[in-house]
Amino acid sequence: MEKALEGIKVLDFSHLLQGPFATQLLGDMGADIVKIERAGTGDMFRGMTFFNKWVGGSESPSFLSWNRNKRSIALNLKSPRVREIIMEMAKDADVVVQNFRPGVMEKLGYGYEDFRAVNERIIYCSGSGYGESGPYVSRPGQDMLIQGLTGVAAATGRADQPPVPLGAGMPDQLGAMNMVYAILSAIIWRHKSGKGQKIEVNLMAGMMAHLNQEYVSVLNLDQDFERPNSGIGHPGAEAPFGIYATKDGRYVSIAMSPFGHLMRTLGAEELLRYDSRDQLYSKRDEIWEEVNKVTLTFDCDPLLEILLEADVWTAEVKDFRSATQDPQVVHLGLMTSYEHPIAGTVKCVGPAVRMSETPAEISRPAPMIGQHGQDILAEHGIDAAEIEALIASGDMTIQTKENTKARS
Amino acid sequence: MEKALEGIKVLDFSHLLQGPFATQLLGDMGADIVKIERAGTGDMFRGMTFFNKWVGGSESPSFLSWNRNKRSIALNLKSPRVREIIMEMAKDADVVVQNFRPGVMEKLGYGYEDFRAVNERIIYCSGSGYGESGPYVSRPGQDMLIQGLTGVAAATGRADQPPVPLGAGMPDQLGAMNMVYAILSAIIWRHKSGKGQKIEVNLMAGMMAHLNQEYVSVLNLDQDFERPNSGIGHPGAEAPFGIYATKDGRYVSIAMSPFGHLMRTLGAEELLRYDSRDQLYSKRDEIWEEVNKVTLTFDCDPLLEILLEADVWTAEVKDFRSATQDPQVVHLGLMTSYEHPIAGTVKCVGPAVRMSETPAEISRPAPMIGQHGQDILAEHGIDAAEIEALIASGDMTIQTKENTKARS
Repeated sequence: MEKALEGIKVLDFSHLLQGPFATQLLGDMGADIVKIERAGTGDMFRGMTFFNKWVGGSESPSFLSWNRNKRSIALNLKSPRVREIIMEMAKDADVVVQNFRPGVMEKLGYGYEDFRAVNERIIYCSGSGYGESGPYVSRPGQDMLIQGLTGVAAATGRADQPPVPLGAGMPDQLGAMNMVYAILSAIIWRHKSGKGQKIEVNLMAGMMAHLNQEYVSVLNLDQDFERPNSGIGHPGAEAPFGIYATKDGRYVSIAMSPFGHLMRTLGAEELLRYDSRDQLYSKRDEIWEEVNKVTLTFDCDPLLEILLEADVWTAEVKDFRSATQDPQVVHLGLMTSYEHPIAGTVKCVGPAVRMSETPAEISRPAPMIGQHGQDILAEHGIDAAEIEALIASGDMTIQTKENTKARS
Repeated sequence: MEKALEGIKVLDFSHLLQGPFATQLLGDMGADIVKIERAGTGDMFRGMTFFNKWVGGSESPSFLSWNRNKRSIALNLKSPRVREIIMEMAKDADVVVQNFRPGVMEKLGYGYEDFRAVNERIIYCSGSGYGESGPYVSRPGQDMLIQGLTGVAAATGRADQPPVPLGAGMPDQLGAMNMVYAILSAIIWRHKSGKGQKIEVNLMAGMMAHLNQEYVSVLNLDQDFERPNSGIGHPGAEAPFGIYATKDGRYVSIAMSPFGHLMRTLGAEELLRYDSRDQLYSKRDEIWEEVNKVTLTFDCDPLLEILLEADVWTAEVKDFRSATQDPQVVHLGLMTSYEHPIAGTVKCVGPAVRMSETPAEISRPAPMIGQHGQDILAEHGIDAAEIEALIASGDMTIQTKENTKARS
């Protein structure tokens, strides 16, 4: 079947998470993503992992997660000849994506104006931590730091303990989505206007836009959210909204359910004394403790059955591994895998959205460093002799299974 | 200036968060969003708030957060005449968005096939909790429940305490972004093909796609993430990555910084005994406790100054209110406001992305229930007498300042 973004060509200078995930989303829809990595070691994310373990002995799970459906070419951006080649490639490109610190690409000769000089239809999208000017412009803009600055860490955890970062990096995720939102909007406008444009996305503005409900509440109700001191599930929530333990060491979440109905369903009529709107907020931690004593008298499966039967909004709380085995996840076919020349079979999550006419799909594994360099240069008329020369001078790198060293 | 999505018309049947935020993002870019609410009380989110407080005495901060840049019409979808009118409106619409439980819209006569019968270019996007079939299809799909099922709640918090939900609802946020990603991709494909299509987005698949790095790591490294039992900032992270307390009762986050460099910068050379890759993971909680004792000897501002001077990746941890006053937030102009007829001046966060040629902007406040009903019907040739009849029969509602009652 056709793909929605077939025919869109992206020059992708991005590294780490925000930019690469954005271009992967475009690639899942069929865009041609040319990942331009630094010669030598490639994207910095290739050298980062968890537990000091590597997939297939050398490959980073973080890199494998955000770089499928791309071709890679690894070049020395400081070489004048490489710059000429990239500007040649830009002539028929639609989009440039980059997330170096502000000013770095301009200094190397790859700013918006440089690309516009060869292609006025180019859409140029920059990602940064804090935007392209201002007091934090030279600071490192990293996911957890943004969580801290925007208030979401302080809203997570327990009142009597320090703020808690989220168990996964959401500012980066949202930053990637904001890039996609702006790039696709710009492509749609270009159909009408014939013009490209410059887009700036930053993690701080992105995270804040997604916390709009929290800010609107705090600023316009003039009351601050406070971390609960229990398993209550949101700093602005009243009981019973939260996570509760069961006798067999598992947990269930219980969302907005009328308190009285829940207590009757649990056979805990004595707790109906708390059933007033004021107490459900002001005594939420005390109520959580009482309700938790009740859920601890049930095993998880029978508790879920009783609650779902009574139409209470509930679900089990799972860890990552058991989440992948959830019956609904299995039914939807969300878990998939792809074959990688070094890493072997890489288990991963497939595209999230379903489209009837243009399904998103995984058609390429994450590339090795510069794996497609020769093909890409040949497409732009660079002959074999010059390709050899670029490799010999170190201005271009091609990783193969044979020249890959194990990491430890 | 022009807007990127000018000329795109969206019929928006969605309520609560996922769908409304998606269409607000389209509206920020200039799309014409016609919000079709139920006659009477409108979008369910209008009746939900925090602390039992209301902006202007009657308006929900949650609703105000996700419904700017829309016009509203409030109709009884079960009325045959209303159905005729909506199908007339659909003839020149581009996109339909809805997030009722699976099957509800079809039963009312507003399924994809119904719209396609009058407009074969229509793009129809459904949002749900768990997808449109499978064992959970009839269960309530709510943000915190999805956090629990997908593993992100179990990855947040402390090892010796229950899993902790995130301080803000991320599955809904990501669900909205996935709708936008798919809808804009479908519009781009329609330029080429002339064809519409059906899109399905669900919170579970969305959240999982954004946890790909966590699943790829756990499944391919064959080791599970475990919640740290300290302020370490990610279940897969080694020390010092985390949040630390300061003498004046504030907190700083410290991201990936070489441990030795950080200890020398803090004058804590005695902790260099921990500086081995193995210990930084296996003893991360013990190390966090030791480092926290050191940060507690500094006030927050001087600590940040010393660390930033040494190029350590750090930032303050703020609450929501102080985040809005951050100097970088002020510099970027992220906080803004709009005027609402009942709520007055509504403080909020502006659009996150910057586009040089087609800036996103707030040009309308969140609407009152059915506020634009008369204008919208008049655009489709419905005369004043019929509009009066629809209002008189209760099939259409128009909220005004005068007929709004205070809530408490």
